[in-house]
Amino acid sequence: MRVFCDNRQLLHAPQRELHNGDWAPHAESPDRLASILDQCPAEPAQDFGIAPILAVHDPAYVEFLRDAFTQWHTAGRSGDALGYAFPIVGRRRLALDRIEARLGHYAFDASTPIAAGTWQSAYWSAQSALSALQAMEQGVRHSFALCRPPGHHAGRDYMGGYCYLNNAAIAARRATDLGLGPVAILDVDYHHGNGTQDIFAGDPAVFFASLHADPVTDYPFFWGHADERGEGDGEGATLNLPLPQGTKWSGYSTALDHALGAISQWGAKFLVVSLGADTFIGDPISHFDLVTEDYRKLSAQIATLGLPALIVMEGGYAVDDLGRNVLEFLAGFD
Amino acid sequence: MRVFCDNRQLLHAPQRELHNGDWAPHAESPDRLASILDQCPAEPAQDFGIAPILAVHDPAYVEFLRDAFTQWHTAGRSGDALGYAFPIVGRRRLALDRIEARLGHYAFDASTPIAAGTWQSAYWSAQSALSALQAMEQGVRHSFALCRPPGHHAGRDYMGGYCYLNNAAIAARRATDLGLGPVAILDVDYHHGNGTQDIFAGDPAVFFASLHADPVTDYPFFWGHADERGEGDGEGATLNLPLPQGTKWSGYSTALDHALGAISQWGAKFLVVSLGADTFIGDPISHFDLVTEDYRKLSAQIATLGLPALIVMEGGYAVDDLGRNVLEFLAGFD
Repeated sequence: MRVFCDNRQLLHAPQRELHNGDWAPHAESPDRLASILDQCPAEPAQDFGIAPILAVHDPAYVEFLRDAFTQWHTAGRSGDALGYAFPIVGRRRLALDRIEARLGHYAFDASTPIAAGTWQSAYWSAQSALSALQAMEQGVRHSFALCRPPGHHAGRDYMGGYCYLNNAAIAARRATDLGLGPVAILDVDYHHGNGTQDIFAGDPAVFFASLHADPVTDYPFFWGHADERGEGDGEGATLNLPLPQGTKWSGYSTALDHALGAISQWGAKFLVVSLGADTFIGDPISHFDLVTEDYRKLSAQIATLGLPALIVMEGGYAVDDLGRNVLEFLAGFD
Repeated sequence: MRVFCDNRQLLHAPQRELHNGDWAPHAESPDRLASILDQCPAEPAQDFGIAPILAVHDPAYVEFLRDAFTQWHTAGRSGDALGYAFPIVGRRRLALDRIEARLGHYAFDASTPIAAGTWQSAYWSAQSALSALQAMEQGVRHSFALCRPPGHHAGRDYMGGYCYLNNAAIAARRATDLGLGPVAILDVDYHHGNGTQDIFAGDPAVFFASLHADPVTDYPFFWGHADERGEGDGEGATLNLPLPQGTKWSGYSTALDHALGAISQWGAKFLVVSLGADTFIGDPISHFDLVTEDYRKLSAQIATLGLPALIVMEGGYAVDDLGRNVLEFLAGFD
């Protein structure tokens, strides 16, 4: 399988995040990439420019991402840029000058800092997804975008959950624009892909299905409940399958069957998989019980759809096992 | 002037807040009360029960405030309860179990922890406001509720900005219910009183006028812009006068004249003043340039309205000068 990753994706290295009332080391570390690259060497990304990013994201938000770290230091702050005040449900969008205000405006948590290399890494992470898509245009059935930072928590105009640009959404939108659709996105990260869901909630051209920890107990809390089924023209093109903590392969596999059936019935011709390996039993911030061997079963089950599949890396924080788990997953497509 | 304060308002003592990317000592300290009580001794509050609080606040939110600290420790956390993920603009309200989810659901910042004594202090702070109101029912023209924690950033169902229960709103609602209105609330804290504004935004029976630092540069950022004038039936009953950092008495006084003219023209019969002494030149977290002598001019100018006035304490963090500044303010009503 062709694998794409750019060295600049290593530049993003925030020091810490706010979690459960105190600082914690930033779990989404550059080491994650090394763990995976050890198992499957990658080709560098090509540069497709900003246009496919702006096909998904708000221009003012993208400008914010690019400038925030500089503005933070111009304002006399040190370290990584991090918001502390967040507009409550229902507040309107505003044009705000102060960097703290802009951070709160464009974020939904205090766990997603903007560090010196964040913009570059996010940009090249998106380009890796686009490069993997191009490989498929050129004829391969499956390709793997080793994206990092991940993307599925980032919405059209907001960041959160370690995510800045929504790599899966950017690739899915471009695949649709290239006429490769109808496109379905299957999100198998432990956490709900709220950003992806929001981006396509009203869009009947992209189906979004997600298996994830029940948001009643798990981040991102405010999205991913079973009754979220899309909006307006996109009503019915969103499928959320929240699962309890402690879910093992058997329960997971049953829910996956449900999701695959829906994707098939919907008539998808192209699949984007948001792959999180934080469903692993040893993941330090997650609570499912998949074991390494399950990742090959997972992808083999997905492969029964018989669709061309672009695999986009999302979460997974058990760094020592991450590469092996991802390799198992990729092997299931062979 | 009669002054009300309850000893239990000292119990609330969070250790720290997230601010500009790092922990800062919690500026809204119990010492603030001591600084004011040194200058003007207080009578204890009477207990008016939960009903007048529930006349303003959502019952589920009040229950959350009461239980959050216990739930935080039951969940295995230590220290003060503090959220880290906050629902972005436009998300619906949800029934969530996990304490972190509930903290984010009911807060708009990571600067407003819930500590061991928070509920008791917030409850008695509200009772002090109600006690000061009762003194006015019994005949005094002016009274001072030495509230702490403050209240004006707290909305019907959210906390933020060191505020949990909106003392001024609770008193204003009760004054209206007692037939003392029409009631106007004049907010002269450095920061915009977003909670008070939201509570009465659609209510034509309560006028809200606020002088504050421009939210383009200052907390709470997302509220207090000049074009926020109330909603629905309350359209026109909200007046926001944002002022630039560095504002001195002359500029402040001109804006105050504007607010007082509007309150007078609206036909107010009863005034609630949200008093912040963080407009003081020496305030450590604010940027106006009022000096101690200006506080007597400020209240004397307010007194020209000739209205009965219930003064409710909000912010003010220059602890060494706080008591003196408040005393000057109270003296202007004599």
